[in-house]
Amino acid sequence: MLVSGRRRLLTALLQAQKWPFQPSRDMRLVQFQAPDLVGPHLGLETGNGGGVINLNAFDPTLPKTMTQFLEQGEATLSVARRALAAQLPVLPRSEVTFLAPVTRPDKVVCVGMNYADHCKEQNVPVPKEPIIFSKFASSIVGPYDEVVLPPESQVGASPTPSLATDAMAHVAGFTVAHDVSARDWLTTRNGKQWLLGKTFDTFCPLGPALVTKDSVADPHNLKICCRVNGEVVQSSNTNQMVFKTEDLIAWVSQFVTFYPGDVILTGTPPGVGVFRKPPVFLKKGDEVQCEIEELGVIINKVV
Amino acid sequence: MLVSGRRRLLTALLQAQKWPFQPSRDMRLVQFQAPDLVGPHLGLETGNGGGVINLNAFDPTLPKTMTQFLEQGEATLSVARRALAAQLPVLPRSEVTFLAPVTRPDKVVCVGMNYADHCKEQNVPVPKEPIIFSKFASSIVGPYDEVVLPPESQVGASPTPSLATDAMAHVAGFTVAHDVSARDWLTTRNGKQWLLGKTFDTFCPLGPALVTKDSVADPHNLKICCRVNGEVVQSSNTNQMVFKTEDLIAWVSQFVTFYPGDVILTGTPPGVGVFRKPPVFLKKGDEVQCEIEELGVIINKVV
Repeated sequence: MLVSGRRRLLTALLQAQKWPFQPSRDMRLVQFQAPDLVGPHLGLETGNGGGVINLNAFDPTLPKTMTQFLEQGEATLSVARRALAAQLPVLPRSEVTFLAPVTRPDKVVCVGMNYADHCKEQNVPVPKEPIIFSKFASSIVGPYDEVVLPPESQVGASPTPSLATDAMAHVAGFTVAHDVSARDWLTTRNGKQWLLGKTFDTFCPLGPALVTKDSVADPHNLKICCRVNGEVVQSSNTNQMVFKTEDLIAWVSQFVTFYPGDVILTGTPPGVGVFRKPPVFLKKGDEVQCEIEELGVIINKVV
Repeated sequence: MLVSGRRRLLTALLQAQKWPFQPSRDMRLVQFQAPDLVGPHLGLETGNGGGVINLNAFDPTLPKTMTQFLEQGEATLSVARRALAAQLPVLPRSEVTFLAPVTRPDKVVCVGMNYADHCKEQNVPVPKEPIIFSKFASSIVGPYDEVVLPPESQVGASPTPSLATDAMAHVAGFTVAHDVSARDWLTTRNGKQWLLGKTFDTFCPLGPALVTKDSVADPHNLKICCRVNGEVVQSSNTNQMVFKTEDLIAWVSQFVTFYPGDVILTGTPPGVGVFRKPPVFLKKGDEVQCEIEELGVIINKVV
């Protein structure tokens, strides 16, 4: 089920940074691997930055992928709630590799120009209807995986909240996405169709957890920021979104049927490198952190 | 695994038309359903327009989806070859429902402006590099399924050869695709990003079979045509393709990793409705037949 073989272990890095541990009873679903486990497993992150409970050990009948987990709806969610309430062993963060919370979804739907402040930055009017584009599922990598820079491309970073929907067009939860773009491929190549510039392998880091909807106080009032090598380059709030979650689902549902595990990247705030003066593009060795309040942080090195 | 509930049975229609039966030892892999079988099964079409051999009955250990079948590569292909050589019961065409040969692939990659004669028709230069766009897997329907017209859209038809690749970037085989477009959504809406106009549910009929590569004499010399209500509206040959199969795989592989079951729609020949004078758009009740020599024909009613 993995979309990439490039899972390095930045959990060690997190430990070294003394990541703030915020234990909570939120439901933060993750896909992870551990040295003594065969293949990907489903787990619960014990709070933002906490260790991981192995859901498959708690109930061996649970599926091992998030897509299958979401397909089973309330049946599997109730097992996860029981696990959350129980006193279960917690794998230290240093011993697990976090995968993207969803891998191989049917689709990754993306929304362009969806932050009012991002439109202002570009001096363009706020769109009257959502601008929808896509990434292939094969562009998804884990929250701490490397982003592979294609040759001769100018690459920009944008944190964007994303959400996974279940088959009934209900939101399952929220996570953090890094919408990486190869700018030259967006603006001058491929007949100006954005797909290629958006969908290189590794151009869609996701994670660290799928934070279930009822664990987020207000998804439309969360601080969102992006740091490159520690410097804040984007800082905004999801209250700047032009089209809210429910508007976007309603809009896109006019065109396509959603399946459990489908992902929507709901847009990026201002500060995108290409619009800076002078423009700033990611280069090899850069470390990008995308963070959204309550949801967590993903950290991806550009290689 | 099905992407749509709208599988109606036009096999009866095929029978009524006295479909030319061409028995052969070609390997024509299909996904099908039958009244006494639970869920989709893998089968072999016994020649273009022939009945179906149930591969899962021949070997119950075979997977039941084409994607899993392709993932196993030579191991499963050799079973299919043994089935082809054996004298096995053939389900009459009237008793099976043909599904798309591949459902829920990781990606559907599409190529724009890839027929020299189609470029000429539009009075535009032949592109110097492939123009790549995509459809969501959720747009795939079976070879005889209905195409659902969205409200207030102008919809055009284009037959396009497509191919499925295995994980090693090798071609598994060829099939027929109908690249349905909502023209207004391509040209004036959604920031001119083609995705939405291309990816409505049902906008990617595929089939009837995945004809394995070694069963096709020369994929770049096949007659290709499209009929609407019996009238030929597109007629060309795959020798008009600007970028051949191997060029396209090499090109797209620069951006993304291919997985077994991935589909490439390699382009459409001239005669596309929007470029006719006056332009012609599909309307409810139309029946579209897309046919490619050796590969077969798909028949989709617009509703």
